[in-house]
Amino acid sequence: MNRRELMKDVGIATGAASLLAVGAARAQGAAVAVNVLVAYHSVTGNTEKMAQGVAEGAKEVPGANSLSKMWARTADDLLAANALIVGSPVYYTNMAGEVKTFFDNWLLKHKFPFAEFKMRNKVGAAFVTGGAISNGKETAMTAILNAMIINQMIIVSGGGAFGASATTGPDSPGIDDKELATARALGKRVAEVAVITKRGSV
Amino acid sequence: MNRRELMKDVGIATGAASLLAVGAARAQGAAVAVNVLVAYHSVTGNTEKMAQGVAEGAKEVPGANSLSKMWARTADDLLAANALIVGSPVYYTNMAGEVKTFFDNWLLKHKFPFAEFKMRNKVGAAFVTGGAISNGKETAMTAILNAMIINQMIIVSGGGAFGASATTGPDSPGIDDKELATARALGKRVAEVAVITKRGSV
Amino acid sequence: MNRRELMKDVGIATGAASLLAVGAARAQGAAVAVNVLVAYHSVTGNTEKMAQGVAEGAKEVPGANSLSKMWARTADDLLAANALIVGSPVYYTNMAGEVKTFFDNWLLKHKFPFAEFKMRNKVGAAFVTGGAISNGKETAMTAILNAMIINQMIIVSGGGAFGASATTGPDSPGIDDKELATARALGKRVAEVAVITKRGSV
Amino acid sequence: MNRRELMKDVGIATGAASLLAVGAARAQGAAVAVNVLVAYHSVTGNTEKMAQGVAEGAKEVPGANSLSKMWARTADDLLAANALIVGSPVYYTNMAGEVKTFFDNWLLKHKFPFAEFKMRNKVGAAFVTGGAISNGKETAMTAILNAMIINQMIIVSGGGAFGASATTGPDSPGIDDKELATARALGKRVAEVAVITKRGSV
Repeated sequence: MNRRELMKDVGIATGAASLLAVGAARAQGAAVAVNVLVAYHSVTGNTEKMAQGVAEGAKEVPGANSLSKMWARTADDLLAANALIVGSPVYYTNMAGEVKTFFDNWLLKHKFPFAEFKMRNKVGAAFVTGGAISNGKETAMTAILNAMIINQMIIVSGGGAFGASATTGPDSPGIDDKELATARALGKRVAEVAVITKRGSV
Repeated sequence: MNRRELMKDVGIATGAASLLAVGAARAQGAAVAVNVLVAYHSVTGNTEKMAQGVAEGAKEVPGANSLSKMWARTADDLLAANALIVGSPVYYTNMAGEVKTFFDNWLLKHKFPFAEFKMRNKVGAAFVTGGAISNGKETAMTAILNAMIINQMIIVSGGGAFGASATTGPDSPGIDDKELATARALGKRVAEVAVITKRGSV
Repeated sequence: MNRRELMKDVGIATGAASLLAVGAARAQGAAVAVNVLVAYHSVTGNTEKMAQGVAEGAKEVPGANSLSKMWARTADDLLAANALIVGSPVYYTNMAGEVKTFFDNWLLKHKFPFAEFKMRNKVGAAFVTGGAISNGKETAMTAILNAMIINQMIIVSGGGAFGASATTGPDSPGIDDKELATARALGKRVAEVAVITKRGSV
Repeated sequence: MNRRELMKDVGIATGAASLLAVGAARAQGAAVAVNVLVAYHSVTGNTEKMAQGVAEGAKEVPGANSLSKMWARTADDLLAANALIVGSPVYYTNMAGEVKTFFDNWLLKHKFPFAEFKMRNKVGAAFVTGGAISNGKETAMTAILNAMIINQMIIVSGGGAFGASATTGPDSPGIDDKELATARALGKRVAEVAVITKRGSV
């Protein structure tokens, strides 16, 4: 529920009280609900596990309603989000083809006119999983962030220099607690910035 | 409906003093003043010209006080900024060594403890000038943005996919009006997001 | 000093024989035939036109047999190549999803064991087309090059800082002669380096 | 000894024989000496230790004469190299300002005319050290490689996806044996490709 809906909800008659409530809510930080969309591709389950961590971290922020799902099917899912966090396995130093196609579909399938910047000012962030320490995780995260910044999204990191990441190869199989903590840190950070930008976008 | 309209809508009668105060502050825009620091390196004057355009664009936003200067000398200049826009000539696909040293000095000279993220949540952006169309302007801008995002700044573009840029070589000498317009667009966009984030960071 | 200059240098008296030797060596050097694979994705025909330019440029090098085709269907096409030049339209600062999937298929479909580096020491290069000057062409080319370098290919540019590129949007519709010249320059450069590396890999 | 020195050495009178000798040498692969320059910046000694590993790895290749030194002082050092491997600590996701200035000096101090591509076809590679796993090592290595590819150098990796790297921060202080092994692998790989390209550049 955004501020305008909130206002409609409490109604004109209760305007004063509601404003007080908003003032109070400010102190609590509760009145600003944000919709954090976590979109990811996962084959082995590792990226999915990270996605769950990201979603949990986002929910730690009062008002954040994180939706973790395989892929947003509709343009409406994207447009309704206040923040979008995209996760991918790393294939050859970049996001998976499926994830790149997810972005391409904003243009090719959802027909977002590029010049309208439909995703403008939504918060964007990235997380990845990959088989070895120096195998392209950073370049994959920056590739995801670049796909967002050209759409005039507001980019943040969290959990690591460029976002959250996990090494899943022979050196360190699966997702360990430390890696999961970076996922949670990313989700929390994105939700916090989404609250800030939504609250500030009055 | 923005906040000001909302406030008018709920009515003066229920406004109380606090609402008047908010309304007044809002109307003046004075309550949300942002300090946009434009820091650049320039040898031929091209990057300086772009910097002036960026600063002018920032000032179009009510409340934005853009400071365009060669280099912030003190850590205080950096810490006092709500947004930092860094400009560089492109040398070999990256920012100039002087600009890289400017960033390094956050660590080496200003002794910002990395783990404290002193620049956290400040808005960051980039602009560059370079001698040919495909000569590393994008990679130079992403390098500047990467230096910011690892410091947990909030990254935005404007004027172009990654920021504002100008081709100054034989194909298109100097800074033309179209390029200057991208500089202004960047400055304005950064100031707008700085206002949003400052207003939302209550 | 190249070989011909060297031969002149060692003296006229020995020039004939040595030149014959060179001729013979060259004739043997005709035996240094290289197979330059140009693989691209094209929707509007712009990238295809650039691909043709790349292929023509490659064929200017004696011994180079450039194969320009939509996509190599089999692992054998890839393994038979001495050089691979990949072209893509730029979508959101990166190669198209189809092109990323082309790379992913080395792993997912062709089952090249990563640790064997099946493409090792083949020459790799990139070309792209995109709708505006600063729209991610450089980041798309570096993404293609990164997908190659992790496979231990030998990376070169040509025609531009990172490879050949063309702006096809409203500012400069279609592929003009200057852009086509960068495509040819790239093809030629890659074929030259492929000849060098093949000749040197005795 | 490079080819020209070789030629001077055998003398005009023996030009033909020397060609035979070269032919013979071909079979042995022994006559191809390469000069691998390792240039690095180091404050704590970590990058220096990696540089030593890189140099040792290069020397494992017959004919490779690796020179590891702080910084090549003269343009001649650069021009005499068959391969250049640049190492840097990672500051804020990029090479150190000192290393960027090293590259800038090709233009600003050594006055290499950009259009002449003085470093063309020399083999280039990168190694870095940094304080945490996901702290910009990959982006720093790609930045070094980008500075080389725009100069039409021939880029290779080794020891890792983009080059050799070591994590030196709290998680893994200093340079361990595994990291040193990646340094050696990089040096060896670069020397091997330098031999191939020199042997093939007849």
